[in-house]
Amino acid sequence: MQELFISSRKNETLREAAKLLVSGEVRREKGLFLAEGARLCRDAVRSGITVKELFYTQSAGEKYPEYIMELREKAEKVFCLADHAGELLSGTKNTQGIFCVCSAGEHEKKEIPYNHCLALENVQDPGNLGTVLRTAEALGVGSVLLCGACCDVFSPKVLRASMGAVFRLPVFFFPSLPAAVAVLDAKGFQTFAAVPESDAFPVTEADFSHPTLMAVGNEGSGLSREAKECCGRKITIPMLGRAESLNAAASASILMWEMMRGGAPHGAG
Amino acid sequence: MQELFISSRKNETLREAAKLLVSGEVRREKGLFLAEGARLCRDAVRSGITVKELFYTQSAGEKYPEYIMELREKAEKVFCLADHAGELLSGTKNTQGIFCVCSAGEHEKKEIPYNHCLALENVQDPGNLGTVLRTAEALGVGSVLLCGACCDVFSPKVLRASMGAVFRLPVFFFPSLPAAVAVLDAKGFQTFAAVPESDAFPVTEADFSHPTLMAVGNEGSGLSREAKECCGRKITIPMLGRAESLNAAASASILMWEMMRGGAPHGAG
Repeated sequence: MQELFISSRKNETLREAAKLLVSGEVRREKGLFLAEGARLCRDAVRSGITVKELFYTQSAGEKYPEYIMELREKAEKVFCLADHAGELLSGTKNTQGIFCVCSAGEHEKKEIPYNHCLALENVQDPGNLGTVLRTAEALGVGSVLLCGACCDVFSPKVLRASMGAVFRLPVFFFPSLPAAVAVLDAKGFQTFAAVPESDAFPVTEADFSHPTLMAVGNEGSGLSREAKECCGRKITIPMLGRAESLNAAASASILMWEMMRGGAPHGAG
Repeated sequence: MQELFISSRKNETLREAAKLLVSGEVRREKGLFLAEGARLCRDAVRSGITVKELFYTQSAGEKYPEYIMELREKAEKVFCLADHAGELLSGTKNTQGIFCVCSAGEHEKKEIPYNHCLALENVQDPGNLGTVLRTAEALGVGSVLLCGACCDVFSPKVLRASMGAVFRLPVFFFPSLPAAVAVLDAKGFQTFAAVPESDAFPVTEADFSHPTLMAVGNEGSGLSREAKECCGRKITIPMLGRAESLNAAASASILMWEMMRGGAPHGAG
């Protein structure tokens, strides 16, 4: 494959790629995102994500030859960068100097698996979202639904915190949580709204042997009223201490753990 | 009480207080820390923390009169600030303009409660540490032991993420995790080292009806070899997905939840 060398930070291809680092709008418009780091880029190609462009710095070429060899095979175009040019693509302090412009398109799966499912409403913190996706994968949640105004799942912080779970986990997008519940209701899922109210149904008594949607709200304000009303049942994590509630990521971790503890739903696939 | 007005950002008292915002070294040297925000400052006084100095801006005086009245009663000295001077004490974008210089001294409790206990080794991320403390309080963990090179529990980010749990939860400091285990071993605690190894003892089968120390390691590298070796047993969270492991905060949440689920230890108080 032809491989171009870029030494100028003013190079047009480089500058276009750099826009994907900082702008969610550009990412959505182009249907592309930028993955950074040897491990994360490899996770992307191994998960079947299309790599439009691979960029690697001269230093990276010396330090990570095996990673780059694997990425080069899958990338449609390859560019080697002078180290100072590579900084333009990096969102971290100590960059490894490996970057892939990836297609966001294939990420959209067609069918929501008939399994356990986590729905997030208006989760705004990228670190929280990435952590929740990583935990969802570890605990075998079948899919994640991002509802309402969640932060961009392809932002550099979410990608990093998710440890590549973004590439592997089926993620679906809905304009609102009630819209998601309507779809899963029709498929026969039981639907729970997680709330910090001590009189709600305790998660320890729920039966997760059926396909289940678990809805978790945003960090500051929890689930919206509409979201709580459209779910079949309010559910809560029984607490001992006086903290008003767990934060969104901690709640989601415990709820997903309880779903896993309940075993795979009958007929899950 | 005499109340001084500070209009200059060069005021010496103000500058001394501002050092507590940025420097862990100054905090340790003086045994003081700076709490910011109406809610957090009120949490501090209600938890019996000594407030050496209260600072509030003129805007805060108009917006939060009830909070300031309560804080004023407990503070040893009170200063009203011109709004632009208040910015010097703030670690946030939109400050409420209320700050307390607090004594870190009373925070050290003498006796570790005979109960469930979480030990953290070298946890460096302030957001993670704050979240874990908040979760520990919510799930009724009796105490938290910070071992080795953990980040400063009185840093502004930890205080914020903990939602005031730092003030209420008994927190103890140990030079290393083995030093903490030695103390709790002698008291008759069972001790577990949390590891991401699938052949370790599953947390779902553990008996938490005894006083228990649960050791969790740092985000990147987990528990040190010494820490794993000094604990009675390695314990793990059974996983389904392919993620290499949960992150430190998610693991700690699930482990503390399982301890709570197991019920209070016999003789806990």
